[in-house]
Amino acid sequence: MAYDSAAVRAVLNAALAAGRTVLTAPEGKAVTDAYGIPTPAEALAETADEAVAFADRIGFPVAMKIVSPDILHKTEAGGVRIGVASAAEVRAAFTAIVTNAKAYDPGSRILGIQVQQMVPAGTEVLIGTVTDPTFGKVVAFGLGGVLVEVLKDVTFRLAPASKDDALSMLDGIRAAEILRGVRGEPAVDREALADLIVKVGQLAADFPQIAEVDLNPVFASADGVMAADVRILLTDETPAARRQYSRDEILTSMRRLMQPRSVTVIGASNEQGKIGNSVMRNLIDGGFPGDIHPVNPKADDIQGRKAYKSVMDVPGEPDVAIFAIPAKFVASALEEVGRKGIPNAVLIPSGFAETGEHELQAEIVAIAEQYGVRLLGPNIYGYYSTWQDLCATFCTPYDVKGGVALTSQSGGIGMAILGFARTTKTGVSAIVGLGNKSDLDEDDLLTWFGEDPNTKCIAMHLEDLKDGRAFVEAARATVPKKPVVVLKAGRTAAGAKAAGSHTGALAGDDAVYDDILRQAGVIRAPGLNEMLEYARALPVLPTPKGDNVVIITGAGGSGVLLSDAIVDNGLRLMEIPEDLDAAFKAFIPPFGAAGNPIDITGGEPPSTYEATIRLGLEDPRIHALVLGYWHTIVTPPMVFAELTARVVEEFRARGIEKPVVASLAGDVEVEEACQYLFERGVVAYPYTTEKPVAALGAKYRWARAAGLLGGGQ
Amino acid sequence: MAYDSAAVRAVLNAALAAGRTVLTAPEGKAVTDAYGIPTPAEALAETADEAVAFADRIGFPVAMKIVSPDILHKTEAGGVRIGVASAAEVRAAFTAIVTNAKAYDPGSRILGIQVQQMVPAGTEVLIGTVTDPTFGKVVAFGLGGVLVEVLKDVTFRLAPASKDDALSMLDGIRAAEILRGVRGEPAVDREALADLIVKVGQLAADFPQIAEVDLNPVFASADGVMAADVRILLTDETPAARRQYSRDEILTSMRRLMQPRSVTVIGASNEQGKIGNSVMRNLIDGGFPGDIHPVNPKADDIQGRKAYKSVMDVPGEPDVAIFAIPAKFVASALEEVGRKGIPNAVLIPSGFAETGEHELQAEIVAIAEQYGVRLLGPNIYGYYSTWQDLCATFCTPYDVKGGVALTSQSGGIGMAILGFARTTKTGVSAIVGLGNKSDLDEDDLLTWFGEDPNTKCIAMHLEDLKDGRAFVEAARATVPKKPVVVLKAGRTAAGAKAAGSHTGALAGDDAVYDDILRQAGVIRAPGLNEMLEYARALPVLPTPKGDNVVIITGAGGSGVLLSDAIVDNGLRLMEIPEDLDAAFKAFIPPFGAAGNPIDITGGEPPSTYEATIRLGLEDPRIHALVLGYWHTIVTPPMVFAELTARVVEEFRARGIEKPVVASLAGDVEVEEACQYLFERGVVAYPYTTEKPVAALGAKYRWARAAGLLGGGQ
Repeated sequence: MAYDSAAVRAVLNAALAAGRTVLTAPEGKAVTDAYGIPTPAEALAETADEAVAFADRIGFPVAMKIVSPDILHKTEAGGVRIGVASAAEVRAAFTAIVTNAKAYDPGSRILGIQVQQMVPAGTEVLIGTVTDPTFGKVVAFGLGGVLVEVLKDVTFRLAPASKDDALSMLDGIRAAEILRGVRGEPAVDREALADLIVKVGQLAADFPQIAEVDLNPVFASADGVMAADVRILLTDETPAARRQYSRDEILTSMRRLMQPRSVTVIGASNEQGKIGNSVMRNLIDGGFPGDIHPVNPKADDIQGRKAYKSVMDVPGEPDVAIFAIPAKFVASALEEVGRKGIPNAVLIPSGFAETGEHELQAEIVAIAEQYGVRLLGPNIYGYYSTWQDLCATFCTPYDVKGGVALTSQSGGIGMAILGFARTTKTGVSAIVGLGNKSDLDEDDLLTWFGEDPNTKCIAMHLEDLKDGRAFVEAARATVPKKPVVVLKAGRTAAGAKAAGSHTGALAGDDAVYDDILRQAGVIRAPGLNEMLEYARALPVLPTPKGDNVVIITGAGGSGVLLSDAIVDNGLRLMEIPEDLDAAFKAFIPPFGAAGNPIDITGGEPPSTYEATIRLGLEDPRIHALVLGYWHTIVTPPMVFAELTARVVEEFRARGIEKPVVASLAGDVEVEEACQYLFERGVVAYPYTTEKPVAALGAKYRWARAAGLLGGGQ
Repeated sequence: MAYDSAAVRAVLNAALAAGRTVLTAPEGKAVTDAYGIPTPAEALAETADEAVAFADRIGFPVAMKIVSPDILHKTEAGGVRIGVASAAEVRAAFTAIVTNAKAYDPGSRILGIQVQQMVPAGTEVLIGTVTDPTFGKVVAFGLGGVLVEVLKDVTFRLAPASKDDALSMLDGIRAAEILRGVRGEPAVDREALADLIVKVGQLAADFPQIAEVDLNPVFASADGVMAADVRILLTDETPAARRQYSRDEILTSMRRLMQPRSVTVIGASNEQGKIGNSVMRNLIDGGFPGDIHPVNPKADDIQGRKAYKSVMDVPGEPDVAIFAIPAKFVASALEEVGRKGIPNAVLIPSGFAETGEHELQAEIVAIAEQYGVRLLGPNIYGYYSTWQDLCATFCTPYDVKGGVALTSQSGGIGMAILGFARTTKTGVSAIVGLGNKSDLDEDDLLTWFGEDPNTKCIAMHLEDLKDGRAFVEAARATVPKKPVVVLKAGRTAAGAKAAGSHTGALAGDDAVYDDILRQAGVIRAPGLNEMLEYARALPVLPTPKGDNVVIITGAGGSGVLLSDAIVDNGLRLMEIPEDLDAAFKAFIPPFGAAGNPIDITGGEPPSTYEATIRLGLEDPRIHALVLGYWHTIVTPPMVFAELTARVVEEFRARGIEKPVVASLAGDVEVEEACQYLFERGVVAYPYTTEKPVAALGAKYRWARAAGLLGGGQ
C-alpha cells in the first residue's frame, strides 16, 4: 500500500512546533490511519450529544476515553470507560470522565472524549519501535499482558523490517506456539500481524523525529488485527554526523593497511623495553619483506635501518604509519602523516578517551578526517597480517598462516587470542586490535576481510558498536561468503556497567544486540573460549549440505551426552531409514544399538569404526557425522585418529565433503590424537562431548544464515 | 492441622473396589475436605429444585457441573455453566446440562448436577502431584493458564514438601514476580498458597494409591486461595521391592570395598590382552600393599603370585572379589563368593542387561541378595582407591592422590575422567565405574564418600537413578560436609532416547531431575567438561564466607567478560563502600577505574597486582576474588603467578582463607602460570573468562546448599 507521508509529516511538525513530544490520541489516529494501521473507528465528541450520536452510528458497546494533552495516564485519571452499552450509559460516562479528569488534574485542558469502536477479542500482542543508541530505529514484537511483561518475551529487528523479518518475529518469541493456536483456539492471522509489524517499522524508519511507537495492546485473531491503543513519542534531536567512507574507499585504504609494501614506525627506538623498540624488532623478526622506515629525531640508525628525523623525510609512499610515541605527541605527528599522504595510522599509544582524554581523541579524529587518514586505535597492541609476514605490534610475532581473522576491542583479549592460537596451532590470516575505535571499527574490517581471499572466517570481540547499522550492513554482505563470529562483551547488566567504565561506551541493551546480530547472520559466541574455539574449528569444517546429523559412538555414555549436545545446539539427529539402519547393523555386534546414536559398543576393533564411518560418509542422506571414541587396547587413540583422518581425506579426494567432529574419551594419548585429527580436517576434542557439537552447531548456524541449507526440515 | 486419613482411605478404597481409577467430583471434594484443601462450597443436586435451594443458600451467582462417572471432559460435553445468576437461570441450566450430557454420551450415568460457589477472582495457579518413575511422589507448582502451559514454567519438589520447600517453589518459577504483585496488583497470600502446596504434597505422600492430583486452576489472591477444580487419579500398582541395606551395613561393606586388605581376582591370567591379566598387572604395578590372590583353575602361578583353582581355596577373608571372567560363568563363581563370605563382588564383565540379558542379571542379583554380597557393576572398567594404591581395573594405573571421588555409569566417561585427571594432575581419592548398577549405585557411594576423610568432593556421571529418593537422602546427608557434583546425561528428549537404548533405564523427565537435584543440594554440571573442571577446582577453593565478590583486573576487556560471567553464575559483584574504593584507588593509576571491577590497567608492575590482591584479601568485607591478568613485559605470567600464590599462601597461613580464581589472558606462558597457581590453591585458567567464574559459582552454590552462607547478602 501507499503510505501518506505528507499527512504524518503535518501532524509531527505541528506537534513539535507546539513544543510537544507526545502525540494526542487523535494525532496518533491520524498517523496510524496514514500508514494503514488498523485501529478502532472513533470520533472526538466535545459534548455528550455528539458522543451519543457517534456511538449510535458505529454501534454499541463503545469505549470512551478522555482526550487531554495534559493527561498521559488516562486510566489512572479515571478517564476510560469500556463496554458502554447504551445511549444513556454514554451520556452518564461522558459526565463521569470529565469530572474525574478535573479532579485528577484541575489545570488540565480537556479537548473532549474519544468514542471508540470496541475492539474484537483476540490474543493481546504488543508492537512498538524504539530508537536504540547503537542500531537506531528498532521494531519490537511480543505478546501483551502482564505475564510477558514479567518474562520479557520480546523480539527485535531493525526498522524497517521486511515481511520475512516480521514473520520471523512471530516465531522469535518463546511463547510463539500461542499464535499458532493452542487448546483448540484458532491461529491468529499471521499475514495481517506481520503486515502490521512492517507498517509500524516503516513508519518509524520514515520519520527520524518519531522516537517511540507503542501499539499496546494489539488484538490479533483469526479474523485480523487491530491496535487498541496507540502511543507515539517524538524527538527533536538529530544524531551527530561522522565522516563516511564509501565501500571502495574502505577497501582501498584497508588493502594498503593489510597488504602494505612500506611501513614507517614513528617513535622507533634502539632502547630495550620501549614500545618503539618492540615494534621494530617484531617487524624485522616477523620477516616483513617490504620497506620498514624508522622515524626518530635523535637517531641515525634503528636496529640496522636508516632512521629519519621526521615522517616527512621518509622515502616513497608508505602505506602505514605505526605510532609508538606518547599520546601528547600524536596530533602533530598525525598532521605530518596526513600531509605526507599516508592513508593509515596505527595508534598504539594509550592516554586518549579510555583515560578520560576525550578532547585529545577528538582532536586527532578531526585531523584524520581532514586528511582522510584512517586511524586504527588508539590504545591498541597493533596488528598482524600473517600472509604478509607483518607483525606490527609490541607483542610477540605469530607465524601460523591460515584462514581466521580475529579482532579484539581489548588488548587483554588480543593477548588471549595470541596465546590460544599459538598453543592450538590455529591458522590465522590477521589479528587486529581495535581499542578505542576512534575511526576504523568492526564494519571496516568486516568489509575488508569479506573480500580478503586468505580469510575464511572472521571472529570479533567487541564491547560496543559505534554504528550498529553499518556493522549489520557489512555483516550481511560478508556472511554469505564466510562465517562471522562475534563475542559481544557486556551482555549482562553488571557486564554493561563495567563496559561503561572501561570505554565510555553506551551499554546497548543485550536483547536488542542479540536479536539484531542474529538477524545479521552473525554467530554469537557465548564466551571468550567459545569464540576462540569456533574461530579455530569453522575454517576446518566443510559446509553441511543438509540437516541430517548422525552420531557414531564406541561409548554409549558419550552417545547420550552427544545427543544432549545435539539438542542444545539446535541440531537434528537424523531419523535413520530402515535400509540404512540395516546397513549399519551389519557392521556392529548384535547387542549394539543402531538407530541414532549408532552405538558400535566399546570393545570393537578399528575395522568397525572404519566401516561405520565409511558408510556415514558414503550415504548421501547423511550430512554430518559426530564421532564418539572410547579408548581401548583394541583400538588405541592414534589408530582411531589415523583411520578417521585417512577415510575422511579419501572421501574428500572423491569430492564428498561432510563435516566430521569427534569427542575422544580416554587417557592422555587422546590429546595427541585430537591435535592430529584437527590438523586433518576433523574437529576433535578430548574430555568433552559439548565442544565438538558446539563447533558443528556454529557451522550449521552459519550455513543457515548464509542461505546454504535451504528451508529444510 | 490434623488430616482425616480415614475419610480419604474410605473414598479411595471404595473407588478402587468399584474398579475406578478416577475419582468423581464429590469424591474429590471429600478427599480435599479431609485434608483442609479449600474448594468452593458445593452440593450435589439430583433435581432442579434441589439445585435452586442450594444456590439460594450459598448465594448467587453459582457454577453448575455435570456429575457422571462416564464423563471425564465436562466442558466438552456441554456439562458446565458458570455465573448462573438467579433461581430461574439455575432451573434452565439444570435442564440444559442434562440434555447436553445425554446427547454427548447417551449411555452415561448421570448422578446429578454439582452446584458450586463461584470462586473469588485471583491469579490462576496450578498445584498437582505426579508419580515419577525415579523419585516417586512429586509435587508440582506453576501459574495456570495457557501461556504458562506453553512456556512450561513449572517447578517440582519431592512429596511431602515442607513449608520451606513450598515457599521456595513460589520463587522457583520464572514468572515468580507475578505472585508478588505487578502493575499495582496486590501480592497473593504466600502463606496460604504454600500451605496448600504442603497439604497436596502430604495427601499424595500419605496414599500410595493416589497416582496423580490436579488442582487446576487454583485462584490465589491477597485474601487466600481456593482450588476451583480437583482431579484425582488412582493406581492399584505397587512397586517391586528390592533388598534394602541399612546405613551401617552400607558403610561396613563399602569400607571393605574401598579399603581392602585382601583382594582376589577371579579369572586372573598370564595371557597378555586378557582382562584378567590387565587387572592383575594394575593391582601389582599400582603398588597395592595388601594380599592379591589370583584364581584360575588352569594355572599354579599368575604373575608371580600363587594361583588358586577356586575362590573357595583362597586363604583368609578377602574383602573384594574382582570378576574377570565371561558373563556366563559369573553366577556360579558368585555363588562361591557368597559361600566364602566375601562381601564385595566387582563385576567387570559385560553381557548382562546392557546387551539384553536381563535374566542373567536378575539371576546374579538374586544370588547376591541371598548371600548379602554387594555387587559393583556388571559392565564396568573396575575402580580405583588411590589412597590404598588400589587399581582394580583393566585400564591404566593412576597415582595422583587427592580429594576428589569420581564415579561414572559409562566406561567411556570413566576413561575421560582418567585422561583428564592425569593431564591436569587432579588429586583423586577414588574413581569408580557403576555400569549396570545391578546393586551398588550412587547412593551407596555417596554414603561412603560422605564419611571418607580422604574425599573432599564427589563428582558423579549418571544416566538414571535406580532410586531417586535414596539418592536424595544420601545427598542431603553428604552435602553439608562436602560438595556433590552431578552430570546427569540424557537431559534432552533426544538424549533421553539414547539413554533408553543404552541402559534400558526409564528416561526421567529432566525438569523433575533438575528441580529435585537442586532441592537435594547437588551442583548439577551442564556438561562433561564442567563436571571434570568443578571436580578439579572445588577441593582447591576455600569456602566463601559471604556473597561479596570483587574483580581485580589488569585488562579492562577481561573485566567486562568476567562481570558477564559473574551474573551468568548467579554471583554478586560487591558494591564497594567509599573507604574501600579510596583504598584501592591509592594503588592504581588515576585513569584506572576503581568500583568493581577494579581496573588496575594494563601497564602496571607486579607491585600493583600485589597491593590490590593484598587489600582484597585483607578487607573482611570482601569474600572472594576474581583476578584478570594481562600478559605484559612489565609483569610476565610467572611473575604474576608467583606473587599471587605467595600472597594467597601468606594470608592462608594467617588464617584468612578466601576463594581466589583467575583468568589469564596472554601468550602461551600463561598455561604454565595457571598450572602453577592451581597447584597452589588458586583456580586459574588461560584463554577463558568463563571457567574460573563458573568454578567459583559452583563453590558458592555448594556453600549455599550446605547452609554455610546464611540467607543474607
